[in-house]
Amino acid sequence: MKTSQRIQKMGEPALLKYYPLVSEAQKKGKKVYFLNIGQPDIKTPAGFLDSVNCIDQEVLSYQAPEGIIELRQAACDYYRRLGLHYDVGDLFVTNGGSEALLFTFIGICNAGDEILTAEPLYSIYKEMAAATDVNLVGFKTYAEDGFALPAAAVIEAAITPRTKALLMTNPGNPTGKVFSREEIEVMVKLAIKHNLYLISDEVYREFVYDSQDYLSPAQYDELAQHFILIDSISKRYSACGARIGFIVSKNKTLMNQLKKLVQMRLSVSTIDQIGAVSLLKLDGDFFDGVLKEYTCRREIVYAALQEIPGVICKEPRGAFYFMAKLPIKEASHFIEWLITDFDYQGETVLLSPANDFYLNPQDGADEVRIAYVLNGEDMKKSMEVLKHGLAAYEKAFPEQCK
Amino acid sequence: MKTSQRIQKMGEPALLKYYPLVSEAQKKGKKVYFLNIGQPDIKTPAGFLDSVNCIDQEVLSYQAPEGIIELRQAACDYYRRLGLHYDVGDLFVTNGGSEALLFTFIGICNAGDEILTAEPLYSIYKEMAAATDVNLVGFKTYAEDGFALPAAAVIEAAITPRTKALLMTNPGNPTGKVFSREEIEVMVKLAIKHNLYLISDEVYREFVYDSQDYLSPAQYDELAQHFILIDSISKRYSACGARIGFIVSKNKTLMNQLKKLVQMRLSVSTIDQIGAVSLLKLDGDFFDGVLKEYTCRREIVYAALQEIPGVICKEPRGAFYFMAKLPIKEASHFIEWLITDFDYQGETVLLSPANDFYLNPQDGADEVRIAYVLNGEDMKKSMEVLKHGLAAYEKAFPEQCK
Repeated sequence: MKTSQRIQKMGEPALLKYYPLVSEAQKKGKKVYFLNIGQPDIKTPAGFLDSVNCIDQEVLSYQAPEGIIELRQAACDYYRRLGLHYDVGDLFVTNGGSEALLFTFIGICNAGDEILTAEPLYSIYKEMAAATDVNLVGFKTYAEDGFALPAAAVIEAAITPRTKALLMTNPGNPTGKVFSREEIEVMVKLAIKHNLYLISDEVYREFVYDSQDYLSPAQYDELAQHFILIDSISKRYSACGARIGFIVSKNKTLMNQLKKLVQMRLSVSTIDQIGAVSLLKLDGDFFDGVLKEYTCRREIVYAALQEIPGVICKEPRGAFYFMAKLPIKEASHFIEWLITDFDYQGETVLLSPANDFYLNPQDGADEVRIAYVLNGEDMKKSMEVLKHGLAAYEKAFPEQCK
Repeated sequence: MKTSQRIQKMGEPALLKYYPLVSEAQKKGKKVYFLNIGQPDIKTPAGFLDSVNCIDQEVLSYQAPEGIIELRQAACDYYRRLGLHYDVGDLFVTNGGSEALLFTFIGICNAGDEILTAEPLYSIYKEMAAATDVNLVGFKTYAEDGFALPAAAVIEAAITPRTKALLMTNPGNPTGKVFSREEIEVMVKLAIKHNLYLISDEVYREFVYDSQDYLSPAQYDELAQHFILIDSISKRYSACGARIGFIVSKNKTLMNQLKKLVQMRLSVSTIDQIGAVSLLKLDGDFFDGVLKEYTCRREIVYAALQEIPGVICKEPRGAFYFMAKLPIKEASHFIEWLITDFDYQGETVLLSPANDFYLNPQDGADEVRIAYVLNGEDMKKSMEVLKHGLAAYEKAFPEQCK
C-alpha cells in the first residue's frame, strides 16, 4: 500500500528537525532560548481557567457543530468593538484557526484550483494546500522595503482562471507586515474585479505597533460577499493550547456550505469553548498591557540586531516576528551549528530557517525568523548569544559567510 | 464566486432538518425524547472534571502535535489491557475520531480513489469522502440477518484498481453489528490479498453484549502493516464534548506521513488531553457498570419493538442503536409527523431516518435508527409513544403504510 500523493507533497516544518539536537544540547547542560516558534510566554488571562475550573457538567456532551451560542455571541460583541457588524449566523467556531483555514480551502477550491498569496508566507498554508490538492501561488515581497505589496498589476498577472481566492495575513507571519490602507484597497479591488474570495487571516490583529488603526478588508461593505475572515484566540490571549478559532463571512451561500464541514466533525471542545467566552469579553486594557510588553521586546531585539554587522531587517509593524537576513549563506546550517557546536556562557538560541516560508525552498536561504516571545531579559541575552554566534561562525566557516 | 464541487457533494445530516420543528413543538409544551443521536446520558467519569478543575497552567501553550505523552502512554496501557501491543510512536491523538478518519482518508487516498465499506454505514463517512474527493463504495448488509457480511466474493467483486482501503465499523453504527471471527478473517484476508489498508473504526468497542470477546483485525500480526485503528473516547466514557480520538498503526511509513497532518493543525486541546488521561486509566469495573445499564435499555427497547405490529429488527449485538424497519413507506415523513402533528399524553419522540445511512438516499426509506441512550424509564415511555404514533399514523395516512 502506498500513501497518497497529496500527503507526500506535504512538508514537515523545517524547525522540527532541530528538536532532537536541542534535546542533546540540553542534556549537556546548555541553555536554549526558543525563538523559533510563536508560543508566547504571556500568562493566559485568568478568566479562562477560572471558567474551566468551575465547570460542573455531569455529562460532557456534544455542542452544536457551529459552536456554543455564548461564544459566537461573545465573538460578535468583540467584532462590534472593532467596528465590525457580524451576527452569530455569520460565524462558526473551529478547532483553532488551522481548521478555519482547512475548511475554507476545501469549501472554495476544487482539486487543482489556485489560491494567491504573498511570499514569504505562513508555512502551514503550504501544507494545507497540499493536503487539499490546492495550488498555492505566490508573489514575492521583500525585507528591504518592509514586505510592501507589489503593484496591483504584478498580483493581477498571477491570477488565472483557476484562481479562487486571494489570501492575506495581516499582520503577517513571518514578516510582521501590517497592510496599509492603500494595500488593502488593492486587494479589495482585485477580489471584486476578478470575482475572487478574499481570505484575511487576522490572528495577530491586536499585535500592531506605533498606534496604527485597525484596518481590514472586513471594513469594506462592497466586499462583504467575497470576504472570509480567519481568526483564532491562540496568540491574542496567549491561549494556544485551547483550540478555538473562527471562520467568519457574510456570504450565506458559502456559510451554508461550510456548515456541512463543521457538522462533519460534530463539535469543538466544550471546555475550551466555555473558557474562551471569558477571553472574548476582555476589554482593551488587556491588549494595551500585552502590546506594551511586546513593544518593549521588539525594541530590544531591533536595537540588538542593528548592532550586529551584516544583519538586514526592518522593524516589524505587527505580530511578534522579525524576518532578518544574516551575513551567511545557509541559515539552516548556521542554526544547527548554534545548537550543536556553539554556546556563549553556556547558552544558545534556536531560530527558524526562513526557507520554510517560501514556496521554493531555495528562497530565503540567508534569512531567519526570530520570534520575540520571551521576556525582555531573555530576549536581550538571546541577542547577545546571536551576536557572538555570528562572529564565531564567521571564524569557523568563512566560506559560508558573505 | 462559487463554492467547490466537493463541498456541494456533501450532505447535511438528515436529522438536522427536524430541529426547528422540534423547537416549535417544545415551545408548545410537547416533551420530546431524543432517540436520534448517539449522545449518551451516562455521567462522564468524575476523573475527567477532577483533573480539569485543578489545572493551574499559567500559560495554556501548544502541546506536541502528536499529543501529550501522558495521554499516548495511557492509550498504550489501555490497549495492552485488551491484549494489543502498541508503542506511543504507533499512535497520534486527534480532535475526536472524526479527525482520525479525515486524516486517514487524506493520507491514503488520492482524489478519485475508493474506500470500500458495508452499508448501512455511519453517515459521516459519506461527508468525509466527499470533502476529500474519495469515492466511498458500498456493499449491502441487511437487517433481516443481523447485517451479516456477504460472502468474500461479493466484497471482492467491488474491489477495483482504485480501491485503497476496506473500512469496517465494529461494533457498527447504525447497525449494532458485531463482527464474528469468521467475518473479521474475511476482511483480513481480503486486505492482505489485494494489498489494501484495513481501517477499523472501533469507537463502540466496549459496547458489546452477551459476553462476547473482543475481536478485531488488530489481533492479526500478519495484518499489522495494513491496519489502521480509529478510536475515540466520546462514546466509551460518555465524553463526546471532549474532542479526543486516536489514529493507530504500526505502519511506520504511513505514520511518518500522517504526522504531517497532525503538525498542520498544530495541537489538540490541552485541557481535553489532560482530562482524558484519567479516563483511559479506568479499569473494567467502569465498563461493566455502563454495559449493564445499556443491556437493560436494549432489552426494554427490543421487548417493546417486538410488540409493535409490523416492526422488523434483530437485537443489536453491540453499540447502542436499533435499525428497525417500520410498516410505513417514508420514514422521513413519519418522523416529521411525530414531531409536528402527534403526541401521546403530551410527549413524542425524535428518530433518525435511515436513508442517511446509505449511499443511495432511496435506500432505507422504511427504516429508522433508534438510539437507546436514555434511561430505562424514558426508553419505556418513548417506545409507548412510538407504538401509539404508528397506530395513529396508520389511521391518518393509510396510503403511506404497508
